Amino acid sequence: MVQEKKKDEMTLTQFLEAVAEGSATPGGGSVSALAGSLGAALVEMVVNLTLGKKGFEAQEAELKKIRQEVRSHREALAATIVQDIKAYQEVMIAYLLPKTSEEEKRKRKEEIQKSLKKAADPPLFTAATSLKVMKLCQEAVEKGNPNTISDAAIGVLLADAALLGGIFNVLINLSALDDKTYVEKMKKELRRLRLEGEKIKKSILGRVKEKIY
Amino acid sequence: MVQEKKKDEMTLTQFLEAVAEGSATPGGGSVSALAGSLGAALVEMVVNLTLGKKGFEAQEAELKKIRQEVRSHREALAATIVQDIKAYQEVMIAYLLPKTSEEEKRKRKEEIQKSLKKAADPPLFTAATSLKVMKLCQEAVEKGNPNTISDAAIGVLLADAALLGGIFNVLINLSALDDKTYVEKMKKELRRLRLEGEKIKKSILGRVKEKIY
Repeated sequence: MVQEKKKDEMTLTQFLEAVAEGSATPGGGSVSALAGSLGAALVEMVVNLTLGKKGFEAQEAELKKIRQEVRSHREALAATIVQDIKAYQEVMIAYLLPKTSEEEKRKRKEEIQKSLKKAADPPLFTAATSLKVMKLCQEAVEKGNPNTISDAAIGVLLADAALLGGIFNVLINLSALDDKTYVEKMKKELRRLRLEGEKIKKSILGRVKEKIY
Repeated sequence: MVQEKKKDEMTLTQFLEAVAEGSATPGGGSVSALAGSLGAALVEMVVNLTLGKKGFEAQEAELKKIRQEVRSHREALAATIVQDIKAYQEVMIAYLLPKTSEEEKRKRKEEIQKSLKKAADPPLFTAATSLKVMKLCQEAVEKGNPNTISDAAIGVLLADAALLGGIFNVLINLSALDDKTYVEKMKKELRRLRLEGEKIKKSILGRVKEKIY
């Protein structure tokens, strides 16, 4: 396990090493958040390679709006890399609470349930924000430089991996939760995110295939 | 455009910024290589969270072999982040060659064709190596700690995004190539990679759904 404070100052190599080693964090949750962030960065690139190019003057204001939004998603997703680690550490701490007396057992169980619910937040944020990135990607593809279609397509692949990865990690936390009403509500929301993401992915990959296959 | 020499020493934030800015590199090709590398790191993590655990003693030798192989793929894919940038720069340099005389035109065209063929190598390597990562991921899932299934699944999502991203970038280079025999041979190879990848992805995602949905 690495110190989370320096996480956003880590080099690519250090991050890869930290994922690979035998501790639970950073794991799939942090990698999903990074994948979403990489997807967002590619959408920004698509916009930046369009702005200022001849023939795209009319879309300038809309493209700048897309860029601003996707940049804020990129930064928020990058911050989630660390938030996911912290939330998971809270779960591990709760599991380590004493469980000798009945009162301790009750308290420990309560803390575990609370920390598991909270640990579902970062991956849910990753999934929901990656869907927003996918929507912005579709807008950028419609308004942007067609020469950047493969970068947009790779952006959507990364955002989609982040969306699904986020969903998997929410589901893992849900599986240990007692509050079944909450679990059902979350599962419904995850299905919605997934279906919307599927649709956008298909649309953009269809376009890239038309152009380069 | 950033100096490629320091690319592997870049922090996550610096890399994300470099992708987002309005230059052609690092772009989808480098992001795909990084995605493959992240997928490989997650497979290593799955193995590392299995080794030493009770009940997995019999698989120790095989798991160590998987870890060694996937680690070398992780490092090779991480190195491809920079190789992709360099290869693309060679293409841009070729396009800038003088084209006044007939001799210059002939020479320029030849250099462009040569650089395009070479620029297809890094993304082809990314695609082929990411498929190897997916195969090792499947082995790790079969032999590893079932509690790490979601990390393995996210690993396969990232490796699959890298496989497809690599394919897109090879196809872009092929689209400007005159050597049609070479193009057809490559397209056939890409189809094979894609189909094999699809199969493994479906199998691992099926398993994760069984466990956590």
